[in-house]
Amino acid sequence: MKTLKRYISLLMLAAMPLLGLCAGHPSLLFDTTELTEMKNGLDDAPLFKKSIDKIIANAEAALKTPIEIPEPCDGGGGPVHERHKANYYEMMDCGVAYQFTSDKRYADRVADMLEAYARLYPTLGYHQLGLSPVPGKLFWQTLNESVWLVHTAIAYDCIRETLSEARRKNIEENLLVPMAEFIMTGTEDNRANLKTFNKMHNHGTWATAAVGMAGLAMDRRELVDKALYGTDLTGKNGGFLQQMDELFSPDGYFTEGAYYQRYALWPFVIFAQCINHSRPEIGVFEKRDHILSKAFDTLFQLSYEGEFMHINDAMEKGLSAQEMVYAANILHAVEPDNAMLPYIARNYHEDCIPCIGGYRLAKAVERGEGKEPPFRTTVLRDGRDGKEGGFGIIRDTADGRNTALTMKATSHGLSHGHYDKLTMAFYDNGKEILPDYGASRFINLEAKNSGHYTKENDTFCKQSVAHNTLVANRTSHFGGVYKVSSKHHSDFVDQYVSPDGSLQAMRARENNAYADYGAGTERTLMYATLPGLEFPVVLDLTRVSSERENSYDLPFWYRGHMVSTNTDQHRSLTRLEPLGEGHGYQHIWLDATCEPKDPDSPLQFTFFNGDRMYTLTTASTSPVKGHIVHLGANDPNFNLREEKGWIVNVPKASDCTLATVIEPHGHYDVVRETAEGTKTSVTDLRIVDDSPESTVVEITYGPDGRKARFTAGKDGEYRVTAE
Amino acid sequence: MKTLKRYISLLMLAAMPLLGLCAGHPSLLFDTTELTEMKNGLDDAPLFKKSIDKIIANAEAALKTPIEIPEPCDGGGGPVHERHKANYYEMMDCGVAYQFTSDKRYADRVADMLEAYARLYPTLGYHQLGLSPVPGKLFWQTLNESVWLVHTAIAYDCIRETLSEARRKNIEENLLVPMAEFIMTGTEDNRANLKTFNKMHNHGTWATAAVGMAGLAMDRRELVDKALYGTDLTGKNGGFLQQMDELFSPDGYFTEGAYYQRYALWPFVIFAQCINHSRPEIGVFEKRDHILSKAFDTLFQLSYEGEFMHINDAMEKGLSAQEMVYAANILHAVEPDNAMLPYIARNYHEDCIPCIGGYRLAKAVERGEGKEPPFRTTVLRDGRDGKEGGFGIIRDTADGRNTALTMKATSHGLSHGHYDKLTMAFYDNGKEILPDYGASRFINLEAKNSGHYTKENDTFCKQSVAHNTLVANRTSHFGGVYKVSSKHHSDFVDQYVSPDGSLQAMRARENNAYADYGAGTERTLMYATLPGLEFPVVLDLTRVSSERENSYDLPFWYRGHMVSTNTDQHRSLTRLEPLGEGHGYQHIWLDATCEPKDPDSPLQFTFFNGDRMYTLTTASTSPVKGHIVHLGANDPNFNLREEKGWIVNVPKASDCTLATVIEPHGHYDVVRETAEGTKTSVTDLRIVDDSPESTVVEITYGPDGRKARFTAGKDGEYRVTAE
Repeated sequence: MKTLKRYISLLMLAAMPLLGLCAGHPSLLFDTTELTEMKNGLDDAPLFKKSIDKIIANAEAALKTPIEIPEPCDGGGGPVHERHKANYYEMMDCGVAYQFTSDKRYADRVADMLEAYARLYPTLGYHQLGLSPVPGKLFWQTLNESVWLVHTAIAYDCIRETLSEARRKNIEENLLVPMAEFIMTGTEDNRANLKTFNKMHNHGTWATAAVGMAGLAMDRRELVDKALYGTDLTGKNGGFLQQMDELFSPDGYFTEGAYYQRYALWPFVIFAQCINHSRPEIGVFEKRDHILSKAFDTLFQLSYEGEFMHINDAMEKGLSAQEMVYAANILHAVEPDNAMLPYIARNYHEDCIPCIGGYRLAKAVERGEGKEPPFRTTVLRDGRDGKEGGFGIIRDTADGRNTALTMKATSHGLSHGHYDKLTMAFYDNGKEILPDYGASRFINLEAKNSGHYTKENDTFCKQSVAHNTLVANRTSHFGGVYKVSSKHHSDFVDQYVSPDGSLQAMRARENNAYADYGAGTERTLMYATLPGLEFPVVLDLTRVSSERENSYDLPFWYRGHMVSTNTDQHRSLTRLEPLGEGHGYQHIWLDATCEPKDPDSPLQFTFFNGDRMYTLTTASTSPVKGHIVHLGANDPNFNLREEKGWIVNVPKASDCTLATVIEPHGHYDVVRETAEGTKTSVTDLRIVDDSPESTVVEITYGPDGRKARFTAGKDGEYRVTAE
Repeated sequence: MKTLKRYISLLMLAAMPLLGLCAGHPSLLFDTTELTEMKNGLDDAPLFKKSIDKIIANAEAALKTPIEIPEPCDGGGGPVHERHKANYYEMMDCGVAYQFTSDKRYADRVADMLEAYARLYPTLGYHQLGLSPVPGKLFWQTLNESVWLVHTAIAYDCIRETLSEARRKNIEENLLVPMAEFIMTGTEDNRANLKTFNKMHNHGTWATAAVGMAGLAMDRRELVDKALYGTDLTGKNGGFLQQMDELFSPDGYFTEGAYYQRYALWPFVIFAQCINHSRPEIGVFEKRDHILSKAFDTLFQLSYEGEFMHINDAMEKGLSAQEMVYAANILHAVEPDNAMLPYIARNYHEDCIPCIGGYRLAKAVERGEGKEPPFRTTVLRDGRDGKEGGFGIIRDTADGRNTALTMKATSHGLSHGHYDKLTMAFYDNGKEILPDYGASRFINLEAKNSGHYTKENDTFCKQSVAHNTLVANRTSHFGGVYKVSSKHHSDFVDQYVSPDGSLQAMRARENNAYADYGAGTERTLMYATLPGLEFPVVLDLTRVSSERENSYDLPFWYRGHMVSTNTDQHRSLTRLEPLGEGHGYQHIWLDATCEPKDPDSPLQFTFFNGDRMYTLTTASTSPVKGHIVHLGANDPNFNLREEKGWIVNVPKASDCTLATVIEPHGHYDVVRETAEGTKTSVTDLRIVDDSPESTVVEITYGPDGRKARFTAGKDGEYRVTAE
């Protein structure tokens, strides 16, 4: 099949000169044949038509406003920054509108604006803000300049044929070529851009896409070649094609996590679309067993209720993001039979991209095509070769349930990574129950650090205690040192699903994060249906072995409202103080400390979220306490959200095993005001065996004191035996 | 029209004995003629059919379980309490299922359960919990017993004809009559029930409905008469018909607010439905110019995005509540042309009530009938005669806007009232922006004070500082004394809408809340479109006049994330302490204090919620400070939600006028990551004239320093003049 497609591509390539398409314009997002198909069939594709109508309306509105090309001066969210962003959207809208309407006014608008930029650009030095290590000229960072050029290249491609040779020369030589050169090589004084361009990093992909698309729009082959194969043209030291090889794992996982994977995917699919028009012989969409499609599928697997899971520096974003519109539209032309694409377009997208895939996808949506893809229990391997740990997901969508349980045992995740080895998150009943904070950032809000990541992103969000993972000696993994953390990755041991689906499990190990303390951690998450319980429970087994005595904290950040503990709560009623002094602890207000009445009895914490209750029951091989906390200390600018946590604390132990059962229970019917099952079923929890060979945990539950045993044995032996 | 309906009712009454309906059963929720109509047309009314199918399925499921009638022992949410609630739903389902299927097994189930209750009930004394001043026998409070009897009366009405005389006698004499007598008169030792029964209070309505419906179900006229006309049968000292006269204002407003109005409406519409079957000559639905329909319409006006506004002891509830299903269904039979009813059923209801209105409403929904009713700018007068102040609402649904601004200037609101004279709330863009806390209660959660109101409901939620209203000397209105507050009401002065709709305003006065300080307050809310601004702004003008010097606080509790102030923020970074010691202040953590750099410059506070920013700019005739706060101090059981507030504080003044402009601004597009207008337009705010005759406030805004003047004159003169 793959080979067949390749032949067809080659065949089309061979036919192209005859059809006169090869050197023509437009040829980036769409070519003239595709344009004809789209224009003739607009009425069959209402979603697409709506987008084209909107593009034309935007273009028409633009004509009524003066061209504004202000001197660069501010950061993300500032009015000048936003003006230059709006300008590239405007040029792209006008360019596309010209192609769809042949109304020359739109083309002229693009040309006029480009000429205005061609006057400004040669006068610019580095941006005055000086905030970025990779500064731009038009924007505070080169990244935004690359994005500007990607959009502008599309606009230029649409209107180039309308220009006189003199105008082309002016625009290309004073604006597009210098900008492409700047993005590709930087300046004599500062080669940061050169490094980025050849780097295996998503900023590098924006750079190669920008330069390559500008090259295609101007018919300048050298720029395209460098974009594809790196500045040395070997294909081994940079370039888009190598980025395709290295930036995704074989499972289509991007090491920074879903939020950035979505962003990274954007230049990949746009540039791939352009390459496919101009150099179909490359077979860009088929590369690495369709790696771009895999990356899209992986983003779906990393979503819950349409939102991407919040690992690393994640913010709110999901399947409805504009990048997902680009990806779904462009991929549909390559994979018309992929039923996920119309499903996502129908449920999450309100517009289309002006490309043949967008048009055909809208037709498919109109015909009612598309099918919800299944969520899988899966491990998404990290690393170019899939050998740097992985991100594990246990899913349960059986019997109307909607549960996801994740464990992150990956590499650090580049500059957006957090010190969160083996962190878990729990999603249930359509909600984030035990969430990951993600990033502290208010994109484009000038008052909030000019829209950049806030200081608290470093001092809290990245720190280990901000995550649902073990922290030793109130110190973040790897001491919170990026260079050290970047050298290591966790190991994903295994994942298991029992034949009848009643038990799912996964395990991972981390041996480097606390090498200084001689401590290694293993975490096992089991998800099991127990007889007599309505909802499956989670058993979280965190085992730490250490040569010396340490303190351990296992935070469970929760969403919902605290209901009760099974202990007295020593609450700080009239004075709050931070839980600690560094590594994120300085941001945590300590609300209450709970000591179990009996050192042998487990610790319980109950909260509710929506119409369901959740109880965390923890047993430990060493004495534990519980801290009830909320965020906000040492946050002078109110950058942190008001998150709440339950932190299981082991004051002193060397080896220690913590077993926590997470039980969803109860129903609260707000319409009828009925409540049932609001108390946990779990009456006791014991670690009955704990050796390197296996850990056995016994849970006692229900009104009749039913018992069940969880066994997590070495070498992937998982078992739950119930009475 | 009204008279005509009345004649028809009388005519039907006259015809009834001929039709053999008068003494027949069922006759409560529906009679045999209606039953025939419903059974014959099920397929035309899918929403109704679904409900009947569910009722029959519930009945069938009930047959498979043993009858459980446990000894009463626990409070709301406890398993025994919930069992007795489930039992009345089960009996009602079985009774109705019998009528729709003629399957005698369902009728037998009801009879068996009633017999079991008839064995238990005579053995019961007052409930052992002893928590309620009006204790029940089967439940901890008589209120629940009344609700039990309302449902059970319907069940009994459905199956009475199937019983032998002996069984009827047993059930009626050992259970239904004694329970009705108990609800009506209490016991020799405790006449609390007698007092409630004759009281003008919604608990009294449940009591009269329960007794009246039991009377109708048993054909015991005396019970029905007492329910309608009070225990002395005069109709002047109690009874359902007097409750209809007194419990709603002429505008259909119930003094406890929407949350309790919904609850109060339930027994009204059910019992009214029963009365209309048995005593149509009363014309119960036409009483007081269709007061029950007015009450329903008022509930709609008191909703925002389908949720009831949270005044007094309100919790989460809205148009989808089961009581609204009852009301919409029952009223539809009386007002088939009221287009609001199918609209609400279609958009908010998932089931129907087994009554002719429910059936016909489902048919109307199926036919696509119904129309969204307009939201009105209105004052809902409080008090039986509409003379006890009112609840003012300014609405704006023009041009895609969705804004509501409210001011509460009513009487205290019975036992569920708060000390919140002249409090305001602001709803915008589909969200609560400046909310009212409502109540602290976790219905049916045993761990939270057994599901009752929490202690913090008294110590915080009811206190003045919990509301967006002026607090003097950190003391709640009326010193927080219910008996004093209950004697007074605020005065709603006026409401104004300019001919072109660009200005809306309302004003109210409160002269009693701080009589001890010789202080009176007047609050004016103006909602105005200003040239050059995208969204209308609110001007909140709070004027206090006092004989002596006081401190004043004007809290603005907000939902969203704090962005910035125009001052330095002296933040408590490593230690939090409560803002005060009583009247709710003890629950407030003080996060930061903001002092204006220049005493003449206004104080500004900006936050965002969703995709919009909000800036509060305050000018004052006396120096002010700002406090940034959040809730949670002195809350040992974590009962309070994590709400956040901005409190404008006047340390010392006698007369004082505070002018606050609330400006919604900006757009944040998360899909495209664009932001605009994230800074407030307001650059200055001055109170330029302030006399008893009028207050004039000048706002300077926009990049060009545009000016506009707000004038709030005596005697309803409202004006905004812009440059």
